[in-house]
Amino acid sequence: MLNTLSTPSDLRSLTFLELIHLSKEIRQRIIDVVSVNGGHLASNLGCVELTIALHTVFSSPQDRFIFDVSHQTYTHKLLTGRNDRFDKIRKYKGLSGFSHPEESVHDHFHAGHAGTALSLGLGMAKSRDLNHENFHIIPIIGDATLTCGLSLEALNNIPKKLKKFILILNDNEMSISKNVGGITGILSRLLNNPRTNKWKHDFEEMLSKLPLYGSQIAKQGVKIAESMKNLVSPAPFFEQFGLSYIGPIDGHDLKKLIPLLETLKNYPLPVIVHVITKKGQGLRQAENDPITYHGAKPFDPETCEFLPTPTKKSTFSKIFGKHILKMAERHPELVTVTPAMSLGSCLDPMMKAYPDRCLDVGIAEGHAVTFSGGLAKSGKNKVVCSIYATFLQRALDNLFHDVCLQRLPVVFAIDRGGLSAADGATHHGIFDIGFLKTMPNIVICQPRDGHLLKELFESSFNWNRPTAIRYPNLPTEERTAKIKYRPLGQGEILSHGEDVVIFALGHQCSAALKVAELLEEQGIFATVVDPVFVKPLDSDLITELAMKHTRFVTIEEHSLAGGFGNAINHFLISQGFASISLLNFGIPDAFFEQGGYQDLLEEIELTPKKMFLKILRHFFFSSKNEKKYQEVL
Amino acid sequence: MLNTLSTPSDLRSLTFLELIHLSKEIRQRIIDVVSVNGGHLASNLGCVELTIALHTVFSSPQDRFIFDVSHQTYTHKLLTGRNDRFDKIRKYKGLSGFSHPEESVHDHFHAGHAGTALSLGLGMAKSRDLNHENFHIIPIIGDATLTCGLSLEALNNIPKKLKKFILILNDNEMSISKNVGGITGILSRLLNNPRTNKWKHDFEEMLSKLPLYGSQIAKQGVKIAESMKNLVSPAPFFEQFGLSYIGPIDGHDLKKLIPLLETLKNYPLPVIVHVITKKGQGLRQAENDPITYHGAKPFDPETCEFLPTPTKKSTFSKIFGKHILKMAERHPELVTVTPAMSLGSCLDPMMKAYPDRCLDVGIAEGHAVTFSGGLAKSGKNKVVCSIYATFLQRALDNLFHDVCLQRLPVVFAIDRGGLSAADGATHHGIFDIGFLKTMPNIVICQPRDGHLLKELFESSFNWNRPTAIRYPNLPTEERTAKIKYRPLGQGEILSHGEDVVIFALGHQCSAALKVAELLEEQGIFATVVDPVFVKPLDSDLITELAMKHTRFVTIEEHSLAGGFGNAINHFLISQGFASISLLNFGIPDAFFEQGGYQDLLEEIELTPKKMFLKILRHFFFSSKNEKKYQEVL
Repeated sequence: MLNTLSTPSDLRSLTFLELIHLSKEIRQRIIDVVSVNGGHLASNLGCVELTIALHTVFSSPQDRFIFDVSHQTYTHKLLTGRNDRFDKIRKYKGLSGFSHPEESVHDHFHAGHAGTALSLGLGMAKSRDLNHENFHIIPIIGDATLTCGLSLEALNNIPKKLKKFILILNDNEMSISKNVGGITGILSRLLNNPRTNKWKHDFEEMLSKLPLYGSQIAKQGVKIAESMKNLVSPAPFFEQFGLSYIGPIDGHDLKKLIPLLETLKNYPLPVIVHVITKKGQGLRQAENDPITYHGAKPFDPETCEFLPTPTKKSTFSKIFGKHILKMAERHPELVTVTPAMSLGSCLDPMMKAYPDRCLDVGIAEGHAVTFSGGLAKSGKNKVVCSIYATFLQRALDNLFHDVCLQRLPVVFAIDRGGLSAADGATHHGIFDIGFLKTMPNIVICQPRDGHLLKELFESSFNWNRPTAIRYPNLPTEERTAKIKYRPLGQGEILSHGEDVVIFALGHQCSAALKVAELLEEQGIFATVVDPVFVKPLDSDLITELAMKHTRFVTIEEHSLAGGFGNAINHFLISQGFASISLLNFGIPDAFFEQGGYQDLLEEIELTPKKMFLKILRHFFFSSKNEKKYQEVL
Repeated sequence: MLNTLSTPSDLRSLTFLELIHLSKEIRQRIIDVVSVNGGHLASNLGCVELTIALHTVFSSPQDRFIFDVSHQTYTHKLLTGRNDRFDKIRKYKGLSGFSHPEESVHDHFHAGHAGTALSLGLGMAKSRDLNHENFHIIPIIGDATLTCGLSLEALNNIPKKLKKFILILNDNEMSISKNVGGITGILSRLLNNPRTNKWKHDFEEMLSKLPLYGSQIAKQGVKIAESMKNLVSPAPFFEQFGLSYIGPIDGHDLKKLIPLLETLKNYPLPVIVHVITKKGQGLRQAENDPITYHGAKPFDPETCEFLPTPTKKSTFSKIFGKHILKMAERHPELVTVTPAMSLGSCLDPMMKAYPDRCLDVGIAEGHAVTFSGGLAKSGKNKVVCSIYATFLQRALDNLFHDVCLQRLPVVFAIDRGGLSAADGATHHGIFDIGFLKTMPNIVICQPRDGHLLKELFESSFNWNRPTAIRYPNLPTEERTAKIKYRPLGQGEILSHGEDVVIFALGHQCSAALKVAELLEEQGIFATVVDPVFVKPLDSDLITELAMKHTRFVTIEEHSLAGGFGNAINHFLISQGFASISLLNFGIPDAFFEQGGYQDLLEEIELTPKKMFLKILRHFFFSSKNEKKYQEVL
């Protein structure tokens, strides 16, 4: 049936039975594709009917759906002409795993970070009203979105008389991990108390029959109604912000959803519709374990078992998780903070072992960092704030104002530093060095392997400074050598050669060593340096090398516009090393879409082979040796 | 009496009458000093009694006061041993206008940005409890703080059983300008309805007498009490987040404040005390016009009239405000957004003329930027988002995710770019280029005078890209020349000379021209260049100059670690201009405290005289010409 739909408006001619059939077909399509490609499984299975209902009632793209985070748009993609390309989701040159305006007129924003939909929707609504237009704006947010400061700022800015603004709260009672905080309590109050509805009804009847206070109550009628609802529903929370609350409603029941949404079309005030859905709906394993099946790896669609991963190697993230647990055992004063990323950051084992010292604050990156500053203030705790590079962008001011300015030794475990591969442009962690390195007092470093990662975390608290240790979620070696103390700002020479110096940051050291091998085959010998530190730079080592060499190369998995290479260039030129010729490898100043990690490295020419050729051409090729290198170039 | 107090604990031996007398003395001291130095007047006059009460009841520094923003700490400073230095407040090498740990053990954080106190307090509390300590933590926040996402994230993270955590809400019903949004409505509900208190009492009595529903009501007793409060107070809002609400209480009545705070000392749950204060209390003019007297310039303490400013010149900010109004008249599609800074950013005239198109979102910088993205999406509005450089740090991810990644042509009017002088380290706008220039798609430029500012704003919408126009709040020329279109990425040569090239960003062009004059006196001739754009750089112009020159100088009022000079260095070295020698002037990689603008320029050696000498020494001095320059060096 999915193949017969050419536009979402075709849904309107289907019967309820056909729509239910369609939802089953969509669900199967999602399972089939995600079992091969990986992707956001549980959340997409949870909102199949909701998305069908929305597209049946409203007229996209005239009416605007704004999906928050937008990892839950698979059904939306299938209904808006992308079924044929759906098996290429999250693949290089394929469909994005998120909403993306370049894919479809039904997608308005390329989203990926949580909590933006309400602000964007309010901006769109203001523009619509200023331009006397008349379409609906329908932000679709998750319950976890409400722990995010940006959403709360937006809630506080909803104009009282905003029309055709229908906020859908897709409540599956969890963020990626488990929800956190007071607002979650508000949402679940109703659900935990099924009898309150009857009680409320009785109580209202009683009030209406009171003779003595009749007139006063009549006067305060609306307020009483409001107030009573506080006993039984999350309504007052939203009504404080000027939203009319409707719900809760079963998000898998098309027969309820469609008529309800239909009646809201001409409601004169802004509305929130509280829809209850089940993450993983329709796939038993995902229903039972929605956290594991949130961002699923490829699995067997029959048994739902995850396919074995091709490598046995551990990853930087896993080594971090294991080692931080060991450190926590040794240091009872060690505390970790995570903004809803305990699973991805591999902190779950520590959370299990030390729930009181592994603190999940929800999707609230700003608070995570400022809270870490508060934790570190007494000097009695070792504080590790674990955060993805791309989400740290949400906490720059907190890092400046509440950590660096206070000279507090918070250690940031910056995960997903580098390309995010399948998640694409919203998730690449390639700007963090740029904004971190202008912060006074901060230390920035990156380990080239799992062993160095351990050494840096062990050493970091001795430096007594705000420290950022960044690493990608890539496989790496975990040597069994003794963990040594790393002095602040000290780099390391990995191999010696007199023709060219190659600095490579973190895991790119292995690429640099391969480049050196390829150069050696041509009789060119490289000194390969792991700087370890981006800030402070190892100025002694760099100066020493700059005295002996005239050819410098830098390699990093970070934007060239403000990364490690930029720091090296700046250092050399400020120190007056004018005769040095430089070649910087890294990520060009542009946005890059999703793809396999290797695809992306090829595209940005960050593979050993391509870098080798460019170095050869740039530094060593001339008319004199044309013949010598002809074959290889 | 103030002089007789050596520690805040001395307050405990004073009678109420003496405390009242003290409050008058403090108020007069604040008026006397602020009338000379300028500073935050109205808010400090508003919390004299509150601060006295806090210091009388609690034992600082053992108990921790955490002042949010901390511009309202003048009384706190006077009570904690800083009376003798108080006339030096906001002066070079004097007291900070904010709380500052280097000044006193009673100050725990160097604050200045809004909304951090609750997060910091929660961090401190967690650390206290992990370490089995037992002091009180008392964050003191303003009502405007509650529009800020960070505060709301923190509210959502208050542990239910947190003890000795007393949140003081100092509610003067306004932020710097007027409060915005739903939360403000919640706070004022009670105050607008004085009769509801009596009504609530009657209603509760009535309920208690009902025979029929007695048992059910008893069972639901707590919930009813909660629910009833919703009719008359902001309590439920805070109780949703696990805070027990106490208040409202008159913040100028020591006889009420002190006993109340005393009783809260051993309360087993986290508490919010809602204190109502009057901004400017005790100074009629400030009470009547607290917005004008918020950040006051020096005034006559008798008449309260502001002293005439020494210069008649306009400022970049004022010219922006005037010109944006003119543009708004010509372009009905132009919209501006401000996060609670309409006064400082000079947007008040536009707000008055076009209230529907000048949108104040409250202290909510993240929302301001994402909302601007939503506004710009349709392409039907010209969107100008006005924000201070230091506060833009709060919206980096919004700028990345909701503007640059979407390629939306939002124009950012970045005010206070450069040193903030009297406000100090928290307010210097010296990191923005660093984090902006790694963003793909963005344009970054800075006008050297008011005329160029107008040209850049007029031209910016033609570039059709996210654009940052940064400028300081400094006096500048406003030429009457015709406004010309500025092509994207085109710099301008201001004077020609063959010996050295000086690039100077924005208002630093006038310093560069003075440096050139001083050099000319020594027979050295400089080419002075206004690059206008930091991104994209004028690569043609720079390349042309690099072919002819070997000495380059850059001048900017921005951190050297990631500013304009860094961009020039990076460009030259990547282009292989190996023979160029460079000298970068700007702000060193450290934090700088408050002071007069000239004091700070002297300290960082950014005056024309100092730069001239350094250029002379670096490029032109040698044993050969020792005699020639001896006199000047």
